[in-house]
Amino acid sequence: MTLVTAEMSISLDGYFAGPRSDETDWTKSPEALGFFRITRWVVNAQSWRERMGYAGGEQSVNSDLAAELTARNGAYVMGRRMADGGEGPWGEEPPFHGPVFVVTHRERETRHCQGGTSFTYVTDGLESAIAQAREAANGKNVLISGGGTTVQQAIAAGQVDELVLHIAPVLLGEGQRLLDNLGVSTGHGRELTPERVVHTQDVTHLVYRVGKAASLFLDDRGSGDGEA
Amino acid sequence: MTLVTAEMSISLDGYFAGPRSDETDWTKSPEALGFFRITRWVVNAQSWRERMGYAGGEQSVNSDLAAELTARNGAYVMGRRMADGGEGPWGEEPPFHGPVFVVTHRERETRHCQGGTSFTYVTDGLESAIAQAREAANGKNVLISGGGTTVQQAIAAGQVDELVLHIAPVLLGEGQRLLDNLGVSTGHGRELTPERVVHTQDVTHLVYRVGKAASLFLDDRGSGDGEA
Repeated sequence: MTLVTAEMSISLDGYFAGPRSDETDWTKSPEALGFFRITRWVVNAQSWRERMGYAGGEQSVNSDLAAELTARNGAYVMGRRMADGGEGPWGEEPPFHGPVFVVTHRERETRHCQGGTSFTYVTDGLESAIAQAREAANGKNVLISGGGTTVQQAIAAGQVDELVLHIAPVLLGEGQRLLDNLGVSTGHGRELTPERVVHTQDVTHLVYRVGKAASLFLDDRGSGDGEA
Repeated sequence: MTLVTAEMSISLDGYFAGPRSDETDWTKSPEALGFFRITRWVVNAQSWRERMGYAGGEQSVNSDLAAELTARNGAYVMGRRMADGGEGPWGEEPPFHGPVFVVTHRERETRHCQGGTSFTYVTDGLESAIAQAREAANGKNVLISGGGTTVQQAIAAGQVDELVLHIAPVLLGEGQRLLDNLGVSTGHGRELTPERVVHTQDVTHLVYRVGKAASLFLDDRGSGDGEA
């Protein structure tokens, strides 16, 4: 069964990158400093490096997990900024090897790349992109690849079945928070079911199933009124 | 060796309570709704209920862990709002059974309660309270009990050796975030060492050693420039 899954690396204080920057050389900005610290574990992983066409890397629990999670994906959804940002670095053979649906306001022809990656530009919104990706995934999962705001919008729209967080052991103190703007209204919560935890020295991986938003109830047994 | 440890229950999106409320009946506010959802795991724990003087509760991994963590503590530091808020519910035998140092602006005589709990009111700041608690802990740990802003201030002051987070599997969408105002300056991060993870269906416990704030470095091997 196809799951829509979102997967992001964040710091323990919840940031997926440093403060947003519009510098021309992004890699010199605090945004990039934070981003590269948080994603270091995957950049070190042999499986990820191989998929990106980079040499080296560590054979490790982290590398195995990255490979396992990636193997589940049949199609991808991403935001326009991420797709644009990747267009240079990903080169002629982007690391997706499957259909990618880019949420954008700008019409553009589908781009077919080497290695089986295609980029389809979807101008009628995130939910349409997810629906198209579900069709294309052929029973495998749809990964909301990012960036952070696209993940937020997908969670807020109730479209994410599974949330995978890779928690890097660092406090950044500032930056762009992943779990903001989630569309949960006051007095409600969106309940999750913890499915799996993988713990290493470099990162803690948390896998949750995402439930529906539901009213919080007054469970004041801890307030002293619940005394038996 | 005495460690200064901070321990809080938070939602996956980082909140220790709902939005701050000044309602007279706090338990009816969204702040309390969030707080009681997040702390439900410990209110269900037999060891915690016993310490609070409440009947019932579950014998569980969570209960054992709560007991184990509590047994390490020789003295406590807390903020004024938490101490005031507890004064009613904790009754004549508060659940600390040791010296508590309350950071406040208001001078007040030390209060000695039944069961070995004392409240000493410290008017010359958090670091002084922590120093006094270290003396009083007799080789055991000093627990920064809360509330959230006191934990933040202690982390920002570089006074916390160990951070224990109990992550409740819920997205609240709004509230008071624990890991804010940490005094980390732009381009820096405070590195942590993951020490332990305990995973249950109700909560995920993460234990970190807290390191020094250090400059982030440009690790752009994942940007395409690091191609080998």
